[in-house]
Amino acid sequence: MTQAPPPGTLYGIGLGPGDPELLTLKAHRLITRTAHLAYFAKAGRQGHARTIIAPYIGRHHREIPLYYPLTTEIHFNAPEYKAQLAAFYEAAANQLAAILASGQDVALACEGDPLFYGSFMHLYIRLRDDFPTRIVPGITGMSGCWSASGAPMTWGDDVLTVLPGTLDAKALKAALVATDAAVIMKIGRNFRKIRETLDEVGLLSRALYIERGTMRDEKVQPLASKADDTAPYFSIILVPGQGRRP
Amino acid sequence: MTQAPPPGTLYGIGLGPGDPELLTLKAHRLITRTAHLAYFAKAGRQGHARTIIAPYIGRHHREIPLYYPLTTEIHFNAPEYKAQLAAFYEAAANQLAAILASGQDVALACEGDPLFYGSFMHLYIRLRDDFPTRIVPGITGMSGCWSASGAPMTWGDDVLTVLPGTLDAKALKAALVATDAAVIMKIGRNFRKIRETLDEVGLLSRALYIERGTMRDEKVQPLASKADDTAPYFSIILVPGQGRRP
Repeated sequence: MTQAPPPGTLYGIGLGPGDPELLTLKAHRLITRTAHLAYFAKAGRQGHARTIIAPYIGRHHREIPLYYPLTTEIHFNAPEYKAQLAAFYEAAANQLAAILASGQDVALACEGDPLFYGSFMHLYIRLRDDFPTRIVPGITGMSGCWSASGAPMTWGDDVLTVLPGTLDAKALKAALVATDAAVIMKIGRNFRKIRETLDEVGLLSRALYIERGTMRDEKVQPLASKADDTAPYFSIILVPGQGRRP
Repeated sequence: MTQAPPPGTLYGIGLGPGDPELLTLKAHRLITRTAHLAYFAKAGRQGHARTIIAPYIGRHHREIPLYYPLTTEIHFNAPEYKAQLAAFYEAAANQLAAILASGQDVALACEGDPLFYGSFMHLYIRLRDDFPTRIVPGITGMSGCWSASGAPMTWGDDVLTVLPGTLDAKALKAALVATDAAVIMKIGRNFRKIRETLDEVGLLSRALYIERGTMRDEKVQPLASKADDTAPYFSIILVPGQGRRP
């Protein structure tokens, strides 16, 4: 009888916000050296993670795209959607588990930082008890955006709050009043509410709007100067802090 | 008469939290290719930034250490300290301005991310109107710490708040109650107050204490299991979020 091989390691590798040169040296080493290369993508698309690592993929790689279930007609809070998503994560975890159990490593390439709002975490919590795991942090989307804007984000003793734009206006307002600096993500259909709330608490003139930060077609502008109420997936609003500065 | 050369560019380059392999490819390229290499350090010490880039420094580099004024006997909120610090930033900015004006680039190497609580910003705001500047984001200390801990930090619609431990107990408590996930920095002498406040709001059992994250001698432990009330400069407390997860 042959013994089972020692299990492979699951690497959760942060790729940063979009510019392929913002991979860390460690992410680059692990991406180029690990044959089994997994990433999330929307069905029918290449996916943002795959686009970032395109320059580093070679013939020795076996790509494992993990396609989210199609969701065009279901609201993301609907129970059917949650069930579909859970089934998808379960199946994806099983797919990676089979490779890990055979003794081979898997690199799961994640846009941004794996443990900061990352889909990676849904597979990680399903696999970490059974397999060795290693996390490589990545530049977050928000760091990429404030660097693109050139705005010093937090000074000295500033409090920074990261807010999803999905919060209702009242919660958003309370959080904005209580903080020195803010990052607002998940803008999309929440754009108008966010702008109105920032205006109400007197922060509109300080707010910046960034689209596709660190990518080739990035846009940075004062939020107040944005003419329409539309925002794509890769957009963010920043309210830089103004803390003590000698 | 000879014309003045076009000015050099000031690069603010994030080095990440400590592991030299967590430099981005872009930071590595700019650090290795820029002859004038500046970094902050405490007087009499090499400094954390210099330690991180040590493997990448060569004979072609001209190092420009920027030594903070000695502060052992003055409180950091005292007017004398603020005046000393302002004079230091002014002198450092002038030093770099002379190099930039001569047409040569300067890479200012910054631990963490340059625009996130970075000393870099104090020189940046003094130089950006006169010289071209470029920012390269870095992995923040907090990303390095949550990756070291392996704790998924924020899920779905979690709100994350970054808090300086210098806040008084009342403000700390209000902020912790209002958020889903928290990062507490600047621990030092504030350790006991922070632990007591976390206990009071029922978050002590979820909190993690990380010392020197991503560095060789990193330590990760539940905050509740930490026996003493001391914490070095490179320490952080995390309260991971528990948002929706299918």
